[in-house]
Parts: sequence; C-alpha cells; structure tokens
Amino acid sequence: MEQGQLVVVSGFSGAGKGTIMKNLISKYPNYALSVSATTRKPREGEVDGVAYHFMSNDQFEEMIAHGELIEYAKYVNHYYGTPRKFVEEKIRQGKDVILEIEIQGAMKIRAQYPDALLVFITPPSAEELRNRLIHRGTESLDVINQRLKRAIEESEGVEAYDYILINDDIDTCTEKLHNLIRAAHQRTAMHMDIIESIREDLRRI
Amino acid sequence: MEQGQLVVVSGFSGAGKGTIMKNLISKYPNYALSVSATTRKPREGEVDGVAYHFMSNDQFEEMIAHGELIEYAKYVNHYYGTPRKFVEEKIRQGKDVILEIEIQGAMKIRAQYPDALLVFITPPSAEELRNRLIHRGTESLDVINQRLKRAIEESEGVEAYDYILINDDIDTCTEKLHNLIRAAHQRTAMHMDIIESIREDLRRI
Repeated sequence: MEQGQLVVVSGFSGAGKGTIMKNLISKYPNYALSVSATTRKPREGEVDGVAYHFMSNDQFEEMIAHGELIEYAKYVNHYYGTPRKFVEEKIRQGKDVILEIEIQGAMKIRAQYPDALLVFITPPSAEELRNRLIHRGTESLDVINQRLKRAIEESEGVEAYDYILINDDIDTCTEKLHNLIRAAHQRTAMHMDIIESIREDLRRI
Repeated sequence: MEQGQLVVVSGFSGAGKGTIMKNLISKYPNYALSVSATTRKPREGEVDGVAYHFMSNDQFEEMIAHGELIEYAKYVNHYYGTPRKFVEEKIRQGKDVILEIEIQGAMKIRAQYPDALLVFITPPSAEELRNRLIHRGTESLDVINQRLKRAIEESEGVEAYDYILINDDIDTCTEKLHNLIRAAHQRTAMHMDIIESIREDLRRI
C-alpha cells in the first residue's frame, strides 16, 4: 500500500484555515487531522482529544524527554506540540495526515520529513483579513489590530513553503488544497519503483 | 494577468501521451500545444503546422543561428526543435504551454526555464507497454521489441522530473495531469507578491 502524505497547513489567523480543514475532512475519507498536545487549560466547550490533548506540564515534558513529539514550542508559559505516534501510524496506514501549525513548527517538520508538503493559506488582501477578523465579532478592535500586527510575523519564512493558497472562496480553496495533496502523491520520488521495475522487465526481453 | 505555465510532457512511446494531450486540449481552454519544427519530410496525412512545422535544412539552421529554438536535436539525419516564439508568446498571454518532447530536450528546457513543470507518463508495467504497442497493430514484432529496448533509454534521467503519472486510465490520467498543472500555479514563488502586499498594508496599520 502507498504511504500517506504528511501535510503542513499554516496561514494568517483569519485566513479560514479551520473551515477549510473541516470541509476537507468531511468531504474526503483519506485525511487524518493531527491533534496537538498542550499544557494550557481547556476553554469552555473544548473537548480533550478533539481541540487538543490536554495534559500536565510533567506529562508534556516526559513526552519531550522520550522523543514523542515531532515538534513543540512554548507560548506564554504553555507548551504546544505534535505527538509523533499518531502522525507516523496514520501515514503508515496510507492516510494523508494534516498538521495545522505555525511556520516555526513547520520548519522543524520539514527538517525531519523532507517529503512533507507545506501549504500556506492567505486571504486575498490585508483588507479582507481585517474584515474577517472584525466579522468574527469575538474580539475587540484593539485585539484585532494586535492580531493584524502579529500577522506580519506569522508570514516570516513563508518562502520555504511549497504552495501559497489564496482563500477567496472556501469551497474552491478546499478543492485546491485537495488537489495539491493529490499532486504530491505523483512526485517522481514516490514512483521511481515503477520505472525501475519497467526497466528491469525491458532488459529481460 | 497571471503568466502561463510551461509544461514538458515526456514518457515511454506507447504510454498514451498523444491521447492524453488531445483530451486535455479539447477539455480545457487554457492549454496551448507547442508544435515542433523538423526537417524530415511529412508522412501521409501529416499537415504542416499541426503535426510539425516542416522546413528545409537551411531554414532550420537559420533558426538555430538566430536563437529561435529553445531546444533542438538531430535524430537519424533530421533536425527536430521547439520554436521559441510560440512558447513565449502564449505564456505571456497566460496560456499553459505544453511541450511533448524527450528527456534530453526537457533538460535543456529546465536549464532555461527553471519554473517549467516536468511530467513523465508511464504505463503501469512493461507488460502493459508491450500490449499497447502490439495492439496499435502498425508495427512488426521486431520493431516493437526494438522500441521496448529503446524505452530503457527513454527513461534515462527521469529522476529530474517533478512528477511521474501512471497511465492506467486515459480519463483519470488526463485529470491528474490537469491537476498537476493547476497545482504549479499555486507555487509559493508565484504568489509572494500577495504576501508582500499584505505585509506592507499591515505595517501601515
């Protein structure tokens, strides 16, 4: 059986990543979404194992010590990381595993899995980014402006990504992401075995 | 307007490239197929400007001298080459230009157009390759066996291609090729301008 593809999805907050992931998973059976581990407390409505794997500081540091995280980082006194076991098991089972993480984490993934596909999702303009954050309606204008400022940092290093997806329509963008992942399955390195076997057969004629 | 994508399609003779190209062109309006120039004589039914641009040796060598060919080669005393003007004009007009050429020519294309997409089409097995050549019914078994031997050479250098497409079904393979070309339009280098413009806008907030 063909191995699954590891896919990293990053993007500006407010780019619509969450919705696109949800669409992708519900529309196609071949995807598995990695759930991050964290030491921060669950917020109202966050289910353990769905939003995050919630754990204590000790548990998290034990995972670090045992190499059980592919990447991790500390933000505002809380750890966030990607458990290795789920990712590697699903890939072995032929599932395409999607990690929704920030660029710093993505670079650590690429170092360990050179075949990982890195996709960065962006709204078509800064104006649109601002509108989306405002229309969410959950945050004050001050918080929104802080987030917009942070967006500059969020795009540092995007040059290293394979693809930039412009999200001007959720459904189109979901299809495009799906196609990028399908395309990754056709990369030459994945199919040299077929060429080798054809060459070998031809030599015997 | 977005520039067109240059696409090189190669593959074993008998891989079904011709049919896939025909399908692709008739199904999607955005493709332009490059027509090679050659000094060999037209065969029965070959129309000038469709199968090839037929020309004299002097005309061809003049094109070489003026840099009017992107790549060319001599096989069995006849020149074959890709006229530059058509390719560059169509790309400027936003068309995705497809060149169906051999690997040696593809390497010359890549050297001049690093963003060119290189796709190699193969049947799923040597057995299948043989069956297809036999079912064409146009050649003797001797010629078929020679062609199969040549197929080994036809795949020398395939490691440098971006993608390998396994043609086990013409329609599926046509769709896959279309998707690979669409994916190429999403490559990071093509869209850094949007990221730059978002960054710039954000800095002004």
